[in-house]
Formats: sequence, C-alpha cells, structure tokens
Amino acid sequence: MQGFPAASATMRTTTEQSLGSGAPVLAIDIGGTDIKYGLADPGGAFIHSGSIPTAANHPGTMIDRLSALVEDARISHPQQQPAALGVNVPGIVEEATGVVVTSANLGWSNFPLKELLESRLGLPVALGHDVQAAGFAEHRLGAARGFDNALVVVIGTGIASTIILGGQIYSGHGYAGEIGHSRIEPLGSAAAILCPCGAAGCLQTVSSASAIARHYSAAVGRDVPGAKEVMAAAANDDGAAQLVMDRAFDGLALALAQNVAMLAPEIVVIGGGLAEAGDALLEPVARRLESVLSFHRRPQLVTAALGSAAGMVGAALKARELAAG
Amino acid sequence: MQGFPAASATMRTTTEQSLGSGAPVLAIDIGGTDIKYGLADPGGAFIHSGSIPTAANHPGTMIDRLSALVEDARISHPQQQPAALGVNVPGIVEEATGVVVTSANLGWSNFPLKELLESRLGLPVALGHDVQAAGFAEHRLGAARGFDNALVVVIGTGIASTIILGGQIYSGHGYAGEIGHSRIEPLGSAAAILCPCGAAGCLQTVSSASAIARHYSAAVGRDVPGAKEVMAAAANDDGAAQLVMDRAFDGLALALAQNVAMLAPEIVVIGGGLAEAGDALLEPVARRLESVLSFHRRPQLVTAALGSAAGMVGAALKARELAAG
Repeated sequence: MQGFPAASATMRTTTEQSLGSGAPVLAIDIGGTDIKYGLADPGGAFIHSGSIPTAANHPGTMIDRLSALVEDARISHPQQQPAALGVNVPGIVEEATGVVVTSANLGWSNFPLKELLESRLGLPVALGHDVQAAGFAEHRLGAARGFDNALVVVIGTGIASTIILGGQIYSGHGYAGEIGHSRIEPLGSAAAILCPCGAAGCLQTVSSASAIARHYSAAVGRDVPGAKEVMAAAANDDGAAQLVMDRAFDGLALALAQNVAMLAPEIVVIGGGLAEAGDALLEPVARRLESVLSFHRRPQLVTAALGSAAGMVGAALKARELAAG
Repeated sequence: MQGFPAASATMRTTTEQSLGSGAPVLAIDIGGTDIKYGLADPGGAFIHSGSIPTAANHPGTMIDRLSALVEDARISHPQQQPAALGVNVPGIVEEATGVVVTSANLGWSNFPLKELLESRLGLPVALGHDVQAAGFAEHRLGAARGFDNALVVVIGTGIASTIILGGQIYSGHGYAGEIGHSRIEPLGSAAAILCPCGAAGCLQTVSSASAIARHYSAAVGRDVPGAKEVMAAAANDDGAAQLVMDRAFDGLALALAQNVAMLAPEIVVIGGGLAEAGDALLEPVARRLESVLSFHRRPQLVTAALGSAAGMVGAALKARELAAG
C-alpha cells in the first residue's frame, strides 16, 4: 500500500482481526469525528472498508449518508449480499428498541435509527453503543476473551466503559458504564472541574486524553497536540507534565479502585488512544491501584488487543448475531 | 407477650413477612454480634425463632452451636421437618462451593461451612453472605421488588451492598458489592481515614453508623451511644453534629453517584440501622445526589422494607430454592 497514501489512510480503519465464519455483514461505527464502515465476508475478514468524516449530523442527512455507504458496499461486492447491519452510535442507546435516546456528540434525541435504517435498506439492523461494541469485541475476540467478569475502559476524547458480568454485557438500558462521568472529587471540592456533561469532578475532566492535553497546554501556555506529547514530556522530567499525568493516573486509579470494590472484575482492559502508551500507562495506574486496595480481588490490568477497529468488529459481531437469529 | 420480656426480646428478631408457601426451612443469620435463627413453616411464617450471642467463633465450636439450634427447632416442631437450611455469614463467601473464603468478623478463612454442616445435620445447606441475603430478600419481597436493576445498601457498623442486575444478584464470587470499602477520597488526600480493612478513605470510615458516632464522640469529647443521637443533635442545630452528618451524607451521596454512573440502578434501597432515620437520611442524601448528576438515570431512593429480619428472610428464601432443586 506504500504507493497509495489515500487508500492507506482509509485502510487504517480496518482490522486484521477475523470475526470467524458466518454470514456476510455490514458494520458502521459512528464516532464524533469519523464514520468507519466495513463489509465482512463469510470468512470473517473485512473486504471493503473505509471512513468518512462525521460532519453533517442532521438525522435525515445521516440516514442518506449511511444508506449510500451500504449501497456502495452492495454494488462493489454483489456476490457478498449482507445479511444484517450493525451500527454503533456514541450516546445513550436503547438496543432493544433501536432508539438513540440521546447523543450529545451528534445532537440527536429519541431518534429511531434502527427502524428508519431497516425500512430504507431492507436489512435487519443491530443498534449499539460505540464503546459497548468495542467492549463486546474485546470480550469475544480480544484482551478480555475468556473472562466472565470484565471492565473495558476506553480513554480518548472522553472516557466510557463496557461492563461484562457473567459473560454478558450489562448495559442498564444504555445508561451503564459511564465511568468517564463518574465523579471522583469529594462533594464541595474546589478541585472539581466542570464537565461538558453539566456535572463537575467527572473522571474525564482529568484523565481523558483531551483533558491531559488541555491541562498541560494551559500550564505551559502553548497548545500541545495531544496526551502523547504530555506523557513524553513527563518521561523527560518536565514538572508541569508530571503534575498533569499524576492527576490523570490518580483519577483513573481511584475510579478503577471503586469499581474493583463494587464489581470485582477479573480483568480491566484499557483501550482508546491513551492505551497506545502501553506500560507507560499501565504501570503507574497499577501501582496506584494496588496502593489503595486491601482485601479486594485484584484484576489483571491490560491494554486492549483490537485497537481502534474494536468498535467496528463489535458492530459486525452484533450484526452476525442478529442475522443468526 | 407483655408479661414475657425474655421471649419478647427474642421475638424481636422475627419478622411479620411471609415467605409465601413452600417447604418448611431453617434460616440462620450469623452477624458480628448475634446469631439469629428461625424455622419457617409451609405457609411461610416463622414459627420458631430467636437469637444467641455470636460470642465464641472458633469454627468447630460454631458447628456445634449451629447444630444445637437446628436440633432444638427439630425437636420443638417435629411436625415441620425442614427441607433445607440457609446460613448467612459476614465476609467473603463462595456460594457455589459453600466455603467461607474469609470473614474478618469471625476470624475464619477457607472454612468449608456448607460441607461440614451438611454432613453433621443431614440437611442441604445454602450458604450466603449476610448483606446479599438481605438484599435478596428486599428484591424478592421488599422495597426492590419488581425492579430489574437495584442496589441495596446496608448501613450499620459497616456498609455493604447487594447488586441486582437483570433480576439476578451479581456477587463476583463473593467479592462484589463492597461499597463500604470503596474509596471516596482522592489519592493522597489528607482527609482519608484509615479503615480497619487496611485501606484508607473507605466510605464506611465516614458514613457508617459507627463512624458517625465515633467522629461526633471525638469532636465533643464524650461518648455518644450511636448515630441516632448524632442525627438528633444535628437536627437541634448542634454544629459539631452537623459537620459529622454533612460528611457522612456527602460520602454516601458520592458513592451512590459513582454507582449511578456505572450501574444505573432503577432503585437504591438503604437498609440497616441508619435507615431507621427514614426521611432524615433520604432527603439530604437525595438532594446531594441530584446536585452531582447530569444526564445520568435517576434511581428511586427508598429505605428498606423488611428491617433487621431481611437477612433471615433471605436465608430462608435461599433454603427454599435449594429444597425446590
């Protein structure tokens, strides 16, 4: 692919991960920035995939754009007629009814996406939450595979998690797993930072990749591109970066400790952009977590296995389940 | 019962709550202070019940004492031969194997209580955790009845909870629900109080009934009998009592907010001694909880319905389930 930078950029959204054998299915992962899409063949490989900017997010326009992606896949691969479509949306999603209850990123509320897509495309549609689809994929095929009780935390612009208990995702009608909007500061604390969600002191105000970049930029008076640069500066004895990273690690370890006490997961998988730091993330968080536990059951703490394609893999797996009845 | 104070004192441990119809079963609820016991008849009423001090807790001695309670019930009610026995233990209990993994209160570890009792008594034994049994009873017959996703928090000397998700108790092999040992203070906070569990900043160091009494006693330089007196003093404009109660309510509301974000329970039931305060507990906690939530799904916040007999009702229900196969 060296000679084809445009295609290469697109192909970064695909995955090497095979879904295993089953019906051909379509997967669409709508994020705040990009919409990734793919067609998985009966062998479980993504044979057609790419991404487009999320951009215009008017509900009606979105139906048109998603339909165009599906039609393009159908026309490009006429021999692989998809049996179902899995679609992930960032926000509160009621999977049973297929309604997007609310999506702050997309500006949607009570939007019957499943019903509208099904009637437009003549295909069964499995609607899911972007992070839960990624967690589902990590549980079925990735780092949490084989664990009955797992927590998959995705840290990027925001922070969210998938809770797997007794081998099943617990979604709380779409409201569960919001670890990024779990308050980590005591009530009345002056340290509680206002969160875009409207609350204050949420984990993601200190531990998300975007919060790390923002706090460091404010501290040094210049814009840094992202958390990666802040972690590098901290490793290079930059005091301001170390303060920002300490606060991020402290917050994450605290939130994980609370979930260890309540849910006792056997494994905690950390995914999203921040997880690309690997041991530079895991080691300081694990050390802090250990320092605040007593009799609690220790989880394994690992990074995600499927990378940024986990959401699409999860959507495809859900489409497969729907197609299989 | 007016003329029989001893019997009356014993009967306080029984309950008016009927289990519904089923096999006669025995229930034993081992607490840190008392062991409550009861025999439920086929109509579901406790026809024989009482309590003895927990006192000597050597494993071998305990088997003898529990067996004596069972024999006494069998002899007193020969027409009601119990089909099974439910036993609650405070600590980490592996229900599937019937082993008490650890009980700090009783000083036990890896004690195969179910197996030993079954071979001694010739009765099937259902082993459970005291708070989870109470939560189970509240879910089946009490305040959480009819709710698929519920959190039952018991606040007394310590604080623990039962997590009900999808209509089932989630126990995490006995490690789940330890909200009392969920850290509420930021890492490194000077406000984090050392907990008997070995960690610091645990919820129960500020919000348990015993912590409330202890902090107020320390503040005013005299021993108060319990949290009830501190709440009464706070209502009477006692500044020291108000500070202690504010901290207790703040801590509880924070821990509940974190669980609302992660588990989105439809109802939170508060039981244990502190719940006897009713609205004087619920109202300040509900107000604080509301103040730190944004898009999160609001749970109903109510007090427990079954009172101090909930644990025994839960043990009897589990014995019924075991007897029914």
